Amino acid sequence: MEMDLNAQVKKAGFLQRLKEFPSKLKDGVTKRIKNVQKFGKDDPRRIIHSLKVGLSLTLVSMLYYVRPLYNSFGVSGMWAILTVVVVSEFTVGGTLSKGLNRGFATLIAGALGVGAVHLARFCGDKGEPIVLGIFVFSLGAAATFSRFFPRIKQRYDYGALIFILTFSMVAVSGYRTDEILVMAYQRLSTILIGGTICILVSIFVFPVWAGEDLHKMIANNIIKLANSLEGFEGEYFPSSEKTSKETNSCVQQYKSILTSKSTEDTLANLARWEPGHGRFRLRHPWTKYLKIAGLVRQCAFHLEILNGYVLSDVKIPQDFISKIQEPCSIMSREACEALKAIAKSIKTMKRDSVCVNAYIENSKNAIQNLRIALKTSSPETEKDLLEIIPGVTMASILIEIVNYVEKISEAVEEFTGLAHFKETPDPKVSPELGQHQLLHRGSVKPVLEGDSEEENNSSPHVVINVHDEQPPTTSEKKVSGVQKTRVGVV
Amino acid sequence: MEMDLNAQVKKAGFLQRLKEFPSKLKDGVTKRIKNVQKFGKDDPRRIIHSLKVGLSLTLVSMLYYVRPLYNSFGVSGMWAILTVVVVSEFTVGGTLSKGLNRGFATLIAGALGVGAVHLARFCGDKGEPIVLGIFVFSLGAAATFSRFFPRIKQRYDYGALIFILTFSMVAVSGYRTDEILVMAYQRLSTILIGGTICILVSIFVFPVWAGEDLHKMIANNIIKLANSLEGFEGEYFPSSEKTSKETNSCVQQYKSILTSKSTEDTLANLARWEPGHGRFRLRHPWTKYLKIAGLVRQCAFHLEILNGYVLSDVKIPQDFISKIQEPCSIMSREACEALKAIAKSIKTMKRDSVCVNAYIENSKNAIQNLRIALKTSSPETEKDLLEIIPGVTMASILIEIVNYVEKISEAVEEFTGLAHFKETPDPKVSPELGQHQLLHRGSVKPVLEGDSEEENNSSPHVVINVHDEQPPTTSEKKVSGVQKTRVGVV
Repeated sequence: MEMDLNAQVKKAGFLQRLKEFPSKLKDGVTKRIKNVQKFGKDDPRRIIHSLKVGLSLTLVSMLYYVRPLYNSFGVSGMWAILTVVVVSEFTVGGTLSKGLNRGFATLIAGALGVGAVHLARFCGDKGEPIVLGIFVFSLGAAATFSRFFPRIKQRYDYGALIFILTFSMVAVSGYRTDEILVMAYQRLSTILIGGTICILVSIFVFPVWAGEDLHKMIANNIIKLANSLEGFEGEYFPSSEKTSKETNSCVQQYKSILTSKSTEDTLANLARWEPGHGRFRLRHPWTKYLKIAGLVRQCAFHLEILNGYVLSDVKIPQDFISKIQEPCSIMSREACEALKAIAKSIKTMKRDSVCVNAYIENSKNAIQNLRIALKTSSPETEKDLLEIIPGVTMASILIEIVNYVEKISEAVEEFTGLAHFKETPDPKVSPELGQHQLLHRGSVKPVLEGDSEEENNSSPHVVINVHDEQPPTTSEKKVSGVQKTRVGVV
Repeated sequence: MEMDLNAQVKKAGFLQRLKEFPSKLKDGVTKRIKNVQKFGKDDPRRIIHSLKVGLSLTLVSMLYYVRPLYNSFGVSGMWAILTVVVVSEFTVGGTLSKGLNRGFATLIAGALGVGAVHLARFCGDKGEPIVLGIFVFSLGAAATFSRFFPRIKQRYDYGALIFILTFSMVAVSGYRTDEILVMAYQRLSTILIGGTICILVSIFVFPVWAGEDLHKMIANNIIKLANSLEGFEGEYFPSSEKTSKETNSCVQQYKSILTSKSTEDTLANLARWEPGHGRFRLRHPWTKYLKIAGLVRQCAFHLEILNGYVLSDVKIPQDFISKIQEPCSIMSREACEALKAIAKSIKTMKRDSVCVNAYIENSKNAIQNLRIALKTSSPETEKDLLEIIPGVTMASILIEIVNYVEKISEAVEEFTGLAHFKETPDPKVSPELGQHQLLHRGSVKPVLEGDSEEENNSSPHVVINVHDEQPPTTSEKKVSGVQKTRVGVV
């Protein structure tokens, strides 16, 4: 009876599931389609690239469909199809690199292969396959070994592969056919046709330039740093009106920079194959981007450590926080603004060092204020020192971050010279404004000049004076100040 | 006259250079050859791989050289050569992944291609190329788009490429030939022959397993961390007899871990294609390595920050250094030993948690001692706090590193269970020794239990007692202690 009930329940469940199956299937398929649509919308260049590959394939099929073309190339036309499929890369640099590698490697290996076959024919019927075998083995092994060398791997890996391929094919099939020259010629010409179609489609139909991608990536990484720093400030010194969750998503933005090195290296490598395009000349200093990217990553490492303090539950005494809050806030805010200005200068390809330097100067002054604040907040009891350790560490890492922002700014400054960035459009206004800003916001400097990094003998009353002279940097002031600067500079 | 003299000088210089040319050329060539030799010696598997590719090529050439084989395959034999060249990867996983992708993609695309040609023939002479063109365009574009999806890109990228290739070739050449089934069959069978040769050579002739490489890489990265930590200790608290230069080279070892993520991901991805081999079963938890690697990298980030302090010129007052020196030394030394024990446990695939836990326990006790030391060294003057900030930060990051070492140990502990690591061979001896060690070296613990992480109310005399109870951990003692443990555990 119980068994019966069980079976009935099972049967009912099965029927229920059977009923639900069509709607579930429909839901699943709609979800999938939506995912695919979203994926395409995220970067529409993916869809365009796919259509471009389809276009190249259709164009190259003409070698078969059009009778006169088929008469001259015959079945060799498939090498053109093969070339189109393997050479079509997402970026122009990738397509050029593969296409040129394939073309030159086929040319050299084809010539060597024909030579090897002629040489082997001197050795008689029995000797020919042996000599050819030795050639194929030794050149194949040597070319494979060469692919391990970093320099060759980086730029000519595909060329070495195609070299082995073509040489083996020409040398081995040369044993069975007498029309080896015809074969080598047909292979080379069809590869050239396929490669040319790919390169033309890649350059002239909605091109994706690796160089431009690299340029944007570096600028975006700097913006991510800025956002993380801003988010950190909001998280650690919650004075703004943002919700905690919103800020935290900003804090995490730097994470992708930690492991972006391989992408940057690849893009820089491909960019070197590209001709001048848009705002970039032929000999644009692509490798310099990697130097900036390295400094940005160093900065991200520091943010990663800082983030550990945000997430940890260690409580810092409120009175200590309130003492270091102002200089720390200013430091991170001004460093963040400096990073944003640097990113903007890269994006617009216009020099903007006055504005950037003003922000950095402000954050450096804030470091001095922080030192003073730390000095006045010397722990009274033994217990205190232990409690303020996380705060001190956090401040110390923040100082390092400001130093790295300065290094990034110097590297970008050097880079802008090499890359021929334009000067700011209205040089008359901006230096004045910059100087004004320096005087206005950095007026603490003369007082602090006596305050060397290692030792300080100034008396407390100077400190109080300094605090009086420093204008209160509230967020409203910041916004208006920044807007002023931007009006002058852009 | 002067002109004449100039010309004479130039001529003499030219002759001199001409004379030197042969010796310079010889030097240059010898240098190159030595470089290549050194490169091969650094990893002899590179030479072996090159010879393996040569071997596979020679084997596959037999399709041409041996008359009966040539009679059955004809010129299609070149597909086998092509397959050998592109499928031969350094690791077994790479070869299997490419070979299987190529095989299955050819099978599916070939079948679809034959179907498309038959379908197109219904549309009449004029309609056939148009229908075929639409098929090639749409399937080519769709397959290209699918390659952007991370999941497909990671495992089936090459398969998608070969799918486009084979489908286009079969569909397009089907327009001109009636023997399309023969062509598809020959292509598939020769690709299977080439792929099989590659896979067999890759597995049975000095195989290079991606999984084993990943396993060793993780263990080596942990050792690099340990060496860096050891080098840092020697650099920052120079008590040992090592020269500064020697230590510094050790400190930098962690650098390669910072950007090793892409290599680890690739290896883990390839390892999943490999059958069980050596000490690894078929379903070895390869993805777990990435979790450990992530924690190791986090630890390396902290070392990067720590390294900034080693390189900086900021001087910390000697009396403060001497106060934190002992606990910091013990912390880094014990953490370093724990890392070495973890690495050894991974390398030998034997569980060794007792020994690792003892080291971690010691370093955690040292953290407590450091807290006490910091408490007793509360700065007397305001000036002091500023000066000891770098020292406090350094100690704080060191504490974080010890925490990460514990996390690594936990992750490895979880991993050893999943990967069926062997228990230590003599479990009777080691737990005793471990406990003995805990009692002997960690005897401070009961006193410190009252010393919670946030607040501490114990009076100074307890602190002195603790210092008395803690045995002096000199380097000689350490060595003997470690050797003892190792004798018991291994």
